[in-house]
Amino acid sequence: MDAIWLDNFLRRSLEEDIGGGDITTESCVPAGRRIQGQFLVKEAGVLCGFGVVHRVFSLLDSGIVLRIDHLDGEPVQAGDVAATLEGPARSILTGERTALNLLQRLSGIATATARAVAAVKDFPVRITDTRKTTPGMRSLEKYAVRTGGGVNHRFNLSDGILIKDNHIAAAGGIGPAVAAARARAPHMLKIEVEVSTLDEVQAALDAGAECIMLDNMTDDEMRAAVRHIGGRALVEASGNMGTRDLAQVAATGVDLISIGALTHSPRALDISLKL
Amino acid sequence: MDAIWLDNFLRRSLEEDIGGGDITTESCVPAGRRIQGQFLVKEAGVLCGFGVVHRVFSLLDSGIVLRIDHLDGEPVQAGDVAATLEGPARSILTGERTALNLLQRLSGIATATARAVAAVKDFPVRITDTRKTTPGMRSLEKYAVRTGGGVNHRFNLSDGILIKDNHIAAAGGIGPAVAAARARAPHMLKIEVEVSTLDEVQAALDAGAECIMLDNMTDDEMRAAVRHIGGRALVEASGNMGTRDLAQVAATGVDLISIGALTHSPRALDISLKL
Amino acid sequence: MDAIWLDNFLRRSLEEDIGGGDITTESCVPAGRRIQGQFLVKEAGVLCGFGVVHRVFSLLDSGIVLRIDHLDGEPVQAGDVAATLEGPARSILTGERTALNLLQRLSGIATATARAVAAVKDFPVRITDTRKTTPGMRSLEKYAVRTGGGVNHRFNLSDGILIKDNHIAAAGGIGPAVAAARARAPHMLKIEVEVSTLDEVQAALDAGAECIMLDNMTDDEMRAAVRHIGGRALVEASGNMGTRDLAQVAATGVDLISIGALTHSPRALDISLKL
Amino acid sequence: MDAIWLDNFLRRSLEEDIGGGDITTESCVPAGRRIQGQFLVKEAGVLCGFGVVHRVFSLLDSGIVLRIDHLDGEPVQAGDVAATLEGPARSILTGERTALNLLQRLSGIATATARAVAAVKDFPVRITDTRKTTPGMRSLEKYAVRTGGGVNHRFNLSDGILIKDNHIAAAGGIGPAVAAARARAPHMLKIEVEVSTLDEVQAALDAGAECIMLDNMTDDEMRAAVRHIGGRALVEASGNMGTRDLAQVAATGVDLISIGALTHSPRALDISLKL
Amino acid sequence: MDAIWLDNFLRRSLEEDIGGGDITTESCVPAGRRIQGQFLVKEAGVLCGFGVVHRVFSLLDSGIVLRIDHLDGEPVQAGDVAATLEGPARSILTGERTALNLLQRLSGIATATARAVAAVKDFPVRITDTRKTTPGMRSLEKYAVRTGGGVNHRFNLSDGILIKDNHIAAAGGIGPAVAAARARAPHMLKIEVEVSTLDEVQAALDAGAECIMLDNMTDDEMRAAVRHIGGRALVEASGNMGTRDLAQVAATGVDLISIGALTHSPRALDISLKL
Amino acid sequence: MDAIWLDNFLRRSLEEDIGGGDITTESCVPAGRRIQGQFLVKEAGVLCGFGVVHRVFSLLDSGIVLRIDHLDGEPVQAGDVAATLEGPARSILTGERTALNLLQRLSGIATATARAVAAVKDFPVRITDTRKTTPGMRSLEKYAVRTGGGVNHRFNLSDGILIKDNHIAAAGGIGPAVAAARARAPHMLKIEVEVSTLDEVQAALDAGAECIMLDNMTDDEMRAAVRHIGGRALVEASGNMGTRDLAQVAATGVDLISIGALTHSPRALDISLKL
Repeated sequence: MDAIWLDNFLRRSLEEDIGGGDITTESCVPAGRRIQGQFLVKEAGVLCGFGVVHRVFSLLDSGIVLRIDHLDGEPVQAGDVAATLEGPARSILTGERTALNLLQRLSGIATATARAVAAVKDFPVRITDTRKTTPGMRSLEKYAVRTGGGVNHRFNLSDGILIKDNHIAAAGGIGPAVAAARARAPHMLKIEVEVSTLDEVQAALDAGAECIMLDNMTDDEMRAAVRHIGGRALVEASGNMGTRDLAQVAATGVDLISIGALTHSPRALDISLKL
Repeated sequence: MDAIWLDNFLRRSLEEDIGGGDITTESCVPAGRRIQGQFLVKEAGVLCGFGVVHRVFSLLDSGIVLRIDHLDGEPVQAGDVAATLEGPARSILTGERTALNLLQRLSGIATATARAVAAVKDFPVRITDTRKTTPGMRSLEKYAVRTGGGVNHRFNLSDGILIKDNHIAAAGGIGPAVAAARARAPHMLKIEVEVSTLDEVQAALDAGAECIMLDNMTDDEMRAAVRHIGGRALVEASGNMGTRDLAQVAATGVDLISIGALTHSPRALDISLKL
Repeated sequence: MDAIWLDNFLRRSLEEDIGGGDITTESCVPAGRRIQGQFLVKEAGVLCGFGVVHRVFSLLDSGIVLRIDHLDGEPVQAGDVAATLEGPARSILTGERTALNLLQRLSGIATATARAVAAVKDFPVRITDTRKTTPGMRSLEKYAVRTGGGVNHRFNLSDGILIKDNHIAAAGGIGPAVAAARARAPHMLKIEVEVSTLDEVQAALDAGAECIMLDNMTDDEMRAAVRHIGGRALVEASGNMGTRDLAQVAATGVDLISIGALTHSPRALDISLKL
Repeated sequence: MDAIWLDNFLRRSLEEDIGGGDITTESCVPAGRRIQGQFLVKEAGVLCGFGVVHRVFSLLDSGIVLRIDHLDGEPVQAGDVAATLEGPARSILTGERTALNLLQRLSGIATATARAVAAVKDFPVRITDTRKTTPGMRSLEKYAVRTGGGVNHRFNLSDGILIKDNHIAAAGGIGPAVAAARARAPHMLKIEVEVSTLDEVQAALDAGAECIMLDNMTDDEMRAAVRHIGGRALVEASGNMGTRDLAQVAATGVDLISIGALTHSPRALDISLKL
Repeated sequence: MDAIWLDNFLRRSLEEDIGGGDITTESCVPAGRRIQGQFLVKEAGVLCGFGVVHRVFSLLDSGIVLRIDHLDGEPVQAGDVAATLEGPARSILTGERTALNLLQRLSGIATATARAVAAVKDFPVRITDTRKTTPGMRSLEKYAVRTGGGVNHRFNLSDGILIKDNHIAAAGGIGPAVAAARARAPHMLKIEVEVSTLDEVQAALDAGAECIMLDNMTDDEMRAAVRHIGGRALVEASGNMGTRDLAQVAATGVDLISIGALTHSPRALDISLKL
Repeated sequence: MDAIWLDNFLRRSLEEDIGGGDITTESCVPAGRRIQGQFLVKEAGVLCGFGVVHRVFSLLDSGIVLRIDHLDGEPVQAGDVAATLEGPARSILTGERTALNLLQRLSGIATATARAVAAVKDFPVRITDTRKTTPGMRSLEKYAVRTGGGVNHRFNLSDGILIKDNHIAAAGGIGPAVAAARARAPHMLKIEVEVSTLDEVQAALDAGAECIMLDNMTDDEMRAAVRHIGGRALVEASGNMGTRDLAQVAATGVDLISIGALTHSPRALDISLKL
C-alpha cells in the first residue's frame, strides 16, 4: 500500500470525525493528562489494521506509543489483548473512534477471507476479491483480503482486462473483443473473458484469452468448463460466491474463486479499546 | 448533504476505480456507441442513492440520462425496475461499478434502518445511528439512515457533547464534567451523559444533563432508569443494539435506540444494472 | 481546533505568501545565518495565536525555536515581549509576515471579545459570536473569541438549528417550522427561533423552542420578552450589537449577546517582530 | 484574478459554512420553493464583490439568477439596491451567509481605499496596499484595493524585491544587498530598498535601487528624502499610514503611500440580503 | 485517460501559469473583445493533444470554440492548420501558453514514437514506453505514445511485475523471486524478468516468467536469446534503445522494444497559435 | 523554491508512480533488508536536483541516508559518483524511478543552460528562460536554469508585464498599451514590450518601456535596435534562440537572450543509481 495515499486518506478521515474540534474532550480532560489502554478482542477472527491504527495516532500526536501484540494476519480469540496504547489522554480519546472504525472493518474483511480460504484448504484454488469495494477505501480493503490469505483481483479499470458481455456485444464477438484489447493493452496484462456457456468458453480459448471467468454457472457446468479448458487458461468462478458452498465450487477444479461479499457486505469484527 | 463535498467525494471515488483509464472499454467499445439499461432490484428493501448515482454519471458524461422510477426511501421488491439509464456506452460502462457500489451500500443501510424502525413501530421511540461509520463516507451513510426512517446522532466530535466514562474520570465526576462542557460548548448543543448505573443516572440529572445514554443495560435496568428519569431528560439506549430485540428495548420507554450495526456491518442490497 | 485542518490551512497560507520563493531573502541572506527576535506588543490587548505561530514556523523549518512568554488569553500592555524566536534567518524572514498576519488578527478578535466581556461583567450573560467570519478562517476566529472569554455560537449550518423569518414563512408558521426541524434534526441539537415581536415569542414558546433570538429589539422590548419567557428558553440578543451599549443590553436579562462585529470588522492588534 | 483559484476558494468557503448540510433549511423549506431578494446597501461606500457573489450562487445552484445593478467600484448610498436575486429558496438561504461575508468584507476594503484615494486626490500620488492581508484571501483583498482606486504592491515574496534592514545586515550593506538581488532576480522586477535615514537613501541611490521605501519617517524627513532623490527612484511612504494625515504625506512629494490598515483592519460595509 | 484526473491536472497547470492574474491582458484588452486564431504547424510530425487543448480552454471560458481540423494521431506537414479557435480575447490570451506547452510536448512524443514505429515497420515488433516519464504527466505522455502508434508498458509499480537484479538478489535467485511474485500478485498480471545473460534467460524460463526483458544486450546476444526462448515468453529489448538502430534490433526477433527517450528526452514539436 | 509546494508536488509524483503499491518489491524484498547505492554520472554535464532527491526519499522513509558528493551546479564527468545512498531496500527501490526521473530532467536543463552560458561568456549578456516549461514543474525547471547559470524570466502572468502584438492591437497601439499596464500594474514590475521593427522600438521607448524584447530579428536588425535604444531600456533577444549562434547574438549587444528550448525540449542527463 502506498504510504502517501494512506496518510492523505487518514487525514481526511480524522477531519471528518473531528470536525471543528472534540469539544467534550477539550472541556473535560486536562491538557497534560496521560492515559493507557488495551485493544480487546471480543470475538474470534483475524486481525487486520494495526499499521493503520498506528498511523492514525501518529498523525494526531507523536507522543502516543502503540505496542502491537498480535500482527496483522494473526488469528485471535475473544479475550485476547491485541495491542496496548499509552499517551496523552486528549489525543487518544479524539482518535479512538477513527482507529476502531478502521480496525473493525479491516479485521472483519480479513476474517471473512480467512474463513473462505479455510473452506477450500484441500483444493489448489485461490480466493480472490472484486471491485465491489467501499468507494475511497479500496487499497485498504484489498490489503485486508491479502491479510486474510486471499489474493487480489485487479485494483481498477486500468490494471486488468476483463471483457464482459457488453464489451463483447459492442466489439462484435469474443474474437474481435480480445483482439482489440490485445492491440491496445500493455503487454504485461493478461486478458480475461467472462463467459456463461461452453460455446463461449471455446470462443475465448480460440481468441487466446489467458483467463476465463465462469459467470453464475452451476458446479456441474463449471466442472465441464474446467475439463474443456484443460489448463489452457486460468479459470475463475464468479457470481454470488458469498452464498455458495465454496468446497464444492473448489472441487470443480477452478483456479480462483472471486467473492464480492468479502468487501461489499463485511461484518465488523468486535474489538474495543478499553482505556 | 453538502453538494460540493459530494462531488469531491465522487471524483475521488471515480479516480480510484478508473485509475489510468478503462482499457477494456476503450478497446472494445466504439466511441459513438449508445446503450441503455435498467437498475434491477434483486431483493426486497428500501432504495437509497439514486441522487448520488445521478451525480456519478453526470460527472463522467453530461450526455447520460437517468430516469428514476423509485425515489430514495421507497420500499421495493425483487423484480422492480428502480431506474433506467441511457447514454454513451463507454461512459456508462466506466461508471457502472462506482454507481452500484454506492447504491448497494446505501440501500443496504436504508433497508436495515427501515427494518429497525418497523420493529419498534408501536412505540414512541426513534432509531438513531452512531459514529461507527465508514471513514470518508459518513455524510452518505447518515443520509441513508435518514432515508430508512431513522434520525441522525451527532455527525462529529464538534456538533454534540457526549460525556463518557473517561471524560468523567478525567473531570472528577459527572457534575464537574457537565459543568465544564456547559461552560465551553455552544449554547445550541445539548449535553448527553453516558451512564451504566442508576446512581450515575441520578448524578447526570443532578448535573442538568439534557440527554442520558444508558450503556449496555438490560431491559429491566433500562425500564427502571426511564422511570427514574421521568421525562427530565431524553433517554437513549445504546450498546450492541444490533443484536437485541428492539421491540423489547422500545417497550422500556426509552426515547432513542442507537444502533452501530446499521453502519458498521451493513449488508449490501442486491441491485444490478442490466444493460 | 482540529490540528490537521490547521496544518492544511497554514500550508495554503504560506504558499500564498511565498509564491515561487522568497527571492529577496534567498539573494541577500546566506543559507547558514541564524537570527533571533522578539514579538513586541505595541498596544494593550489580549494575545491570541502563538500556537498558530508555532505551527507556521514548524512547517517551514524544524530548526526554529519559539519561546512563548505570554499564553493565549493573557492580557498584555504596550512594551511587553510576548515571545522570542531563534533559528535560521532565511526561514524566519520568509515566515514572518504570515505569522504576524495571523497573530495580529486573532489577537484583535480576542481583544475585542475581552472588551465586550468586561462591559457585561456584572451580569449573568455570555458574549457569543456569529457566522459572520472570514471565509476560510472560521475555526481560528472562533478560537479567538473563546480566547477572549466569549463562547461560540454554531460553527456551521449543520451543528445548530436557527429558524429565521424565511424558514418560518416557507414552513407556514413558527409551529410547523419547529416541528419540522425537530423531526429531522439530531436530538443533541437545541432549536432556536428568531423573533421580533412578543407574539412571535409566544409562538416560539408554544412550539417548544429551546432558544429564542431577539432580533433588533430595543432594550425595553428585550426586557419585556425576557420577562415573558421567564426561563422557559435561553434568550439571545442579536442585531448590530457591536454598536449597542452592552451593559444596558445585559441588564435586560438576556442570556447571550451575539456580536457579529467581533469577527466581521476586527481591528488587528499591533504586534511586531523585532529581529 | 484567476477564476480557477477563485472557484477552489469558494468551494472551501461554502464547505466551511455548510458543514454536513443546512439542516434548518432542509427541514423547513420545501424543495421546489422559489424566492427572490435584494441586496440592500445600509451605509455609503464603494461596492466590491458581486462577481464573487455570482460565483458563490452558481457553484450552489445553476438556477439562481443574479441581476447586478451597481458594478464593482461604484459608489453607493444607504438605501440603494445593489443587486437582485431570484431562484430556489433552499440554495439561496444556504449560500446567503457566505455571499454576504465576502461582499461586506470586500466592499469594506474598497470603501476604505476609496477614502484614502479621495484624501490625496490633489496630489500625483498613488495609494497602494501591503502583504498585511488575511491569509487565504490575498487575491480577493488586492482586487478590492484596485476596485477602490488603489494599485497593488507585490502579491508575494517572489514577484517583488523588497530589501529590508535584516536583508541589508545579512548582506553586509545596502550596496551588496542590491547587487545580490539584481544578480538573482528576474530582470522584470524592480528592486526596492527600505530606508529610514537620508544616508540610507543615498546608499540606495548609489546601489541603483529603482524604488525607495521611506519607513516611519516624519513628513519633514520624507520631504527632504524626496528632494534628495529627485526623481531617480520611485518613492514609497510606509509605516502606520492608516493613522496619518494622508494629504500631508502626499504633499511631501512621494509617489506611493502604502497602507496596511486597508487590509489588516477593514470594517465590513453594511449590506444585507432582504428576501 | 481519466477525464477527472485530466481536469485536476489542467486546473493546477493553469493556476501555475496564471498566478494572481494575467495583468498584461487585463490591462490592455477590453473585456468584451473577441478574437480568432489558428494553430499553425511549423514542422512535420504527428499531432497529439487537441482534446487536452479543448479542456484547457473550456476550463477557462465556456465561450471559446475550438474547431479541430487534424485529429490526434494524424501526420501533418509544416504549414498545415491544425485547428482554429474563436472566442473572448482575454481568455484565449490567458490560456495560450498552457495550451501550447501541452500540445507541443505531446506532439513531440507522438512524433518520436511514430518515427520509431516507422523504423521497424517491416518487423512484427511493437514499440513501447517506460516509466521514465515527467513526474505528474505520465497519463498524458503514455497517451502520446499510443497516439504515435506505440503501446504502453506498465503505468506504475502496481500494474505490472518487473523483477530486476536487486529483486533477484534479495529474493535469492530468479526462481524464488518469480515464485514470490506469483504468490502475491493479482492473477491478471504477467511476470516479467530482466536478464542480461543466456543463463538468466534459462532461469527465467524455468521459473515460468511470461515476459523476459533483455537488458543492454548486443544485437547478436538478443538474437541468441530470442532463439533460445523460442516463443515460450514475450521478449522485450531494453537499454538505451533511443540510440540504437531500431531496425537491427527488430531483426533479432524481439517482440517489444522499449525506449525511455520517447518520454525522458522529447523534443517539442513546433506549433504556434497565430491570432 | 517554496518547500511546501515541493512536498506537495513530490507526494503527487510518488503516488503517480507507486499506484496501489510496489508489488514486485513487496513480493521479493524482505521488509528488514538494507541496501546501499551510488548515483553514477554517465556523461558530462551540470548536476541539479539532489535537494529534490533528498526530499523524495525523506517522504518515503526517514531511515534513508543520502550523502551528496557533488552539489547542485557542479560540473561533472562520466564516471563521477554524484551521491551515495543507504537505507531500507524496499523504500529505496520504490522511490528510485521518481528520484531519477527528476534528477535526470533537472540536470539536463542545467547542463543545456550551462552550455548556453558558456557560449556567451565573453559578452555582458545573460541567458534567461521562458514560460515554455512543463506544466506542473515550472518552479523546478526555473530552478534548474538558475543552477546552470541562467537567470529567470517571469514565473507567471502576474509577476511580469510583457506586452505582445495582440495586446498592442487590442489597446490601440504601443503607447496606450504601456499606459494601461502602468496604471494597473504593481509599481515593482517593469514593463516589457515585444517588437519586431525599429519603428516599434521607437514607440516602445516613447512609451517609457523599461525592457524591449526583439522578436525573431536577424543579428543585424538586433545590432541596429541595440544601438538605437542606447541603454534607455533593457534589451532581450527572443525567438528560436535554441537554434541560433548564441555568441553572434550576444555580439549584437543585447542584455538578455531568452531560450525556450532550455525547458521545452531538454535532453535528460544520463545518471543511474547503482545499487
